[in-house]
Amino acid sequence: MYGPILAKDAKITGGFWKDKQDLLRDVTVQAVYDRFEETGRFGALCGYWKEGMPKPHIFWDSDTAKWIEGAAYLLMGQRDAALEEKCDDLIARVCALQMEDGYFNSYYQAMEIENRFTQRGNHELYCLGHWIEAAVAYDQATGKDALLQACRRYVALVDRVFRVERSAGFDTPGHEEIELALYKLYRHTSDDMYMTLMRYFVDTRGVPGKDRCVAHYGGGSFYLQSHQPVRRQSQCEGHSVRAMYLYCAMADQAAEDGDEELAEACRRLFENCAGRRMYVTGGIGSTHQGEAFTEDWDLPNREAYAETCAALGLALFARRMVKLDVKGRYMDAAETALFNGALSGLSLSGDCFFYENPLEYSPLRGRIARRIPETPVHCAIGERVKVFGCSCCPPNVLRVYGSLQEFLYGESEDTLYVHMFAESEARTRFGVVRQKTDYPRVGSVEILPPEGEYTLAVRLPRWAKNVCFRVNGEEIRPEVREGYAYIRRGWSEGDSVRLDFDLPVRILRAHPRVGEDAGMACVSRGPVIYCLEGADNGEGLADLALRSDGEARVVMDETFGLPIIALPGSRSVPDDPSDPDQTYPLYADRPYPRQAADLIFIPFYAWANRGENEMRVWVREE
Amino acid sequence: MYGPILAKDAKITGGFWKDKQDLLRDVTVQAVYDRFEETGRFGALCGYWKEGMPKPHIFWDSDTAKWIEGAAYLLMGQRDAALEEKCDDLIARVCALQMEDGYFNSYYQAMEIENRFTQRGNHELYCLGHWIEAAVAYDQATGKDALLQACRRYVALVDRVFRVERSAGFDTPGHEEIELALYKLYRHTSDDMYMTLMRYFVDTRGVPGKDRCVAHYGGGSFYLQSHQPVRRQSQCEGHSVRAMYLYCAMADQAAEDGDEELAEACRRLFENCAGRRMYVTGGIGSTHQGEAFTEDWDLPNREAYAETCAALGLALFARRMVKLDVKGRYMDAAETALFNGALSGLSLSGDCFFYENPLEYSPLRGRIARRIPETPVHCAIGERVKVFGCSCCPPNVLRVYGSLQEFLYGESEDTLYVHMFAESEARTRFGVVRQKTDYPRVGSVEILPPEGEYTLAVRLPRWAKNVCFRVNGEEIRPEVREGYAYIRRGWSEGDSVRLDFDLPVRILRAHPRVGEDAGMACVSRGPVIYCLEGADNGEGLADLALRSDGEARVVMDETFGLPIIALPGSRSVPDDPSDPDQTYPLYADRPYPRQAADLIFIPFYAWANRGENEMRVWVREE
Repeated sequence: MYGPILAKDAKITGGFWKDKQDLLRDVTVQAVYDRFEETGRFGALCGYWKEGMPKPHIFWDSDTAKWIEGAAYLLMGQRDAALEEKCDDLIARVCALQMEDGYFNSYYQAMEIENRFTQRGNHELYCLGHWIEAAVAYDQATGKDALLQACRRYVALVDRVFRVERSAGFDTPGHEEIELALYKLYRHTSDDMYMTLMRYFVDTRGVPGKDRCVAHYGGGSFYLQSHQPVRRQSQCEGHSVRAMYLYCAMADQAAEDGDEELAEACRRLFENCAGRRMYVTGGIGSTHQGEAFTEDWDLPNREAYAETCAALGLALFARRMVKLDVKGRYMDAAETALFNGALSGLSLSGDCFFYENPLEYSPLRGRIARRIPETPVHCAIGERVKVFGCSCCPPNVLRVYGSLQEFLYGESEDTLYVHMFAESEARTRFGVVRQKTDYPRVGSVEILPPEGEYTLAVRLPRWAKNVCFRVNGEEIRPEVREGYAYIRRGWSEGDSVRLDFDLPVRILRAHPRVGEDAGMACVSRGPVIYCLEGADNGEGLADLALRSDGEARVVMDETFGLPIIALPGSRSVPDDPSDPDQTYPLYADRPYPRQAADLIFIPFYAWANRGENEMRVWVREE
Repeated sequence: MYGPILAKDAKITGGFWKDKQDLLRDVTVQAVYDRFEETGRFGALCGYWKEGMPKPHIFWDSDTAKWIEGAAYLLMGQRDAALEEKCDDLIARVCALQMEDGYFNSYYQAMEIENRFTQRGNHELYCLGHWIEAAVAYDQATGKDALLQACRRYVALVDRVFRVERSAGFDTPGHEEIELALYKLYRHTSDDMYMTLMRYFVDTRGVPGKDRCVAHYGGGSFYLQSHQPVRRQSQCEGHSVRAMYLYCAMADQAAEDGDEELAEACRRLFENCAGRRMYVTGGIGSTHQGEAFTEDWDLPNREAYAETCAALGLALFARRMVKLDVKGRYMDAAETALFNGALSGLSLSGDCFFYENPLEYSPLRGRIARRIPETPVHCAIGERVKVFGCSCCPPNVLRVYGSLQEFLYGESEDTLYVHMFAESEARTRFGVVRQKTDYPRVGSVEILPPEGEYTLAVRLPRWAKNVCFRVNGEEIRPEVREGYAYIRRGWSEGDSVRLDFDLPVRILRAHPRVGEDAGMACVSRGPVIYCLEGADNGEGLADLALRSDGEARVVMDETFGLPIIALPGSRSVPDDPSDPDQTYPLYADRPYPRQAADLIFIPFYAWANRGENEMRVWVREE
């Protein structure tokens, strides 16, 4: 059976992602900690509230848990006494908070303990799910299991109340997360009870008569994916982060149980997402209304919500789909989200964040949306901030990019999988595998496989062109199936598999049914989606047009960590109000004069690092 | 001095506008009356309110007044005893309502008479302004002056309270209208006091220390054009209907007084409007937030508010600008608004209305905007309705199109002006002038001037190409200045001036700074702006592209009253999900296949008469 190589068994040792993980270690982990400390999230773990203290929020525990989980991944790579002490301290507070029967939740214990397990929308099981993920990671990183034991006692309570007695005020979580966490706990402890409880939550969800839906948002049962039994679902509905976490659990369960019916549901949902409801950046969830999916092909750029957490969720779901089918399509989507729609959530400085990741921004539209302060129209912000009221994204960035090595490798009885390219090493059942590469800066990768007789399977990303394989210097033509190249042989110490491929600038177009992108193109190279930004191209980006057959210049940029791209195009000749011959009317019955212009594209994830300015991903074609 | 030929002295006798005026007479006037009756607007004139009655609203009187004014214009053309009786009855109720000191206002008298003249935002003077316009029109139409006398007594009160004693709770109206109405009253009665009060309101507005601004909406003093003395204003700001009514009064006053400073302000404001803030349809006011102007070049199509009343207001303002300068530019704008952004407010059936007139609509976006009923996102409706809660537009359509003949002619000591083409006749100081034409269906006009020695000035619309003038069959080349052709001669009985011109299909583009229209074109013919509608072109209008050098086919359509236009273009080859070779991915690095297609354009004003469907004015160019 296929299994991933977990974060604890792999390590990124160089290149683009190493730089990002170093940034997390050097800046982000402390920055998020400081903001959470300041806003009272850690203080809330005292379990009481009195006038003068910030009021604890129902999701604060999840923020703290995700921070600990993220810190744990950093500790896996490199122990750090000061960071570990912070974690230990927070964990000690959680353990002190735990009630006799196992329950702990800083919001409920402080504010309304009598109402615990009654409000489906109040994130209790969601918070527990994140505590579990943190506990497993921290145990793996440090061997300290205090949080893990606390979680196991709490889960025992949940199992009794929800599954055995069915005495809670609702049946399945309002915000999914505990399901995939229970699966992690099961894998970590091998205790079947967790798998049983996970199956219970997954299979009860949306079943008429069994899953009471307490609609707490306008989308009703769709909002929280309870509109149908999960096995019957085929369209991504409702709150997009909730949806992704549910689908993660469904994929985990389908793979674990060899449950083909559930696997089919996962495949339908993935195809609906990646085939009709996903931005080219890997962002998902088109509307701020319920942070939700809308309808097929509805992908407005300026209004895109495309929450950072949702793109991270898509990457986590796609990674799990590989357990069902080894197809390049899945990791293509994961890599797209990781390099674009999720990474844009983090500033280059490592301490500021976007919650929303629109594909177009203009200060003008932002100004107009916010011009009546009493009744603002929703519009994404144009500069990253240090913390949000609902600050789920910053620690999610920390934990997912902190464990990015978990995306790289997988294994089955006779095959070692290389899913993503990054300078790295990993412990597998076959021995230690290594990659040497500076991908995606360049298109060459050297894989050093461990000794033995097995198949090496290497994913060929959709954007890698003219791939050439060499084994010990000798070109081979491996069998390629569904985006993976398969090389079976007896491997010896010192063997080297080398891939060289082109990473051309690719001009992408959207399916014609995506009306918002009609007549426009998007520039990409490798997994990276590019954008125009005002800082490089001046005001009025909508006026710029791309000559899509023009020759691209690709120039490495140290600030962004990846190249910038210049492409030929055109722009209007500017008005000259002092010269009547160059003052153009508002509407005219002939084209306004244009002139050639170089269009400068930067990686989408790097926008909004030079002050508030215009940005657009989709650019019109000449 | 220049003066317009008033509605009472002119008559539309045939053609497109005659059809519309007949529709007003046959359908609209009764339809609006019935809705106002049903909703309690007429009942409110009893001047009291008790439980069980609909609560009167602060602007209901203006609705009733505009309906009477509209009815009066219809009566000018053709007396109608039943209609006149309805008017008489309403007027009798108003007169009975009038208080000892002259005041009448159905809302204040019923609800809070002790607060009269204290709330700037409560439309009292606005309502009075509309009563005055109704009174003047009704006196002109029927010779009955009961309402006129009532208004004169009320105005005397306003003059004392506001101008003489300055004892009201505010200084100038929150919603302009009374100013231009006072000018009409002055012209009708020759009583200088009305001109004095009008000047007081115009010149006090926005003067620091003199005009207390009680901001009652987020835009503050900008919202109601009180941010600066009006003579200093140069940008169209705030609520767009208020702005237009103010500018109308400013232009009236500037012309009456030969006030060059005020005239310059009017010119600046007109240029800002028509040069940077006006949709190609003549719609104005880009945002629903305060029904307001936003910033230069900000003209989003889907989100366009472009209220029917605002386009009507622009036409009224532009018509007055001719009193300051005889320039084709002004009547071009008026005619554009009248044929497009205002006329779209009226259904072809004559009994349904749009308040907002976006330049793009999609049922998908409407559905998504309204999918969470508790927290809808603002989105225009896609089907006209019979009445609105705030139903200012329907009676405004009635009164402005009911008096459309007032746009056609003007006169000065030695010149007779023909501003707009329509089969019509008018009494002028020179005698009766007649036009025979089926413009804008065709580009030929015959003018039958009265006898005498004077100059005939004929506006040449921007969209009339290759104009050929013939006097009594003989071609002449008149002097053309600022969009008017001037022919001076001694005219004899039976003389005929004939213009023949082309009305080609014109492909318009917007100024490059209008980002929302970049890469797109708009189809027009004569004064009429066209649009694509789903009913003719299927779903997915954004996918259609126009070949702007293609040959247009222009085919008369009886339903719409004007031709439809077919132009060559292209659309994507549809997906065929059953054929893998014809199933396209969501994003691809090569263009999706396209095929030739005929694009069918209908007049913009005629959209949404065949059920809810997609519409767009700006279409991308191949």
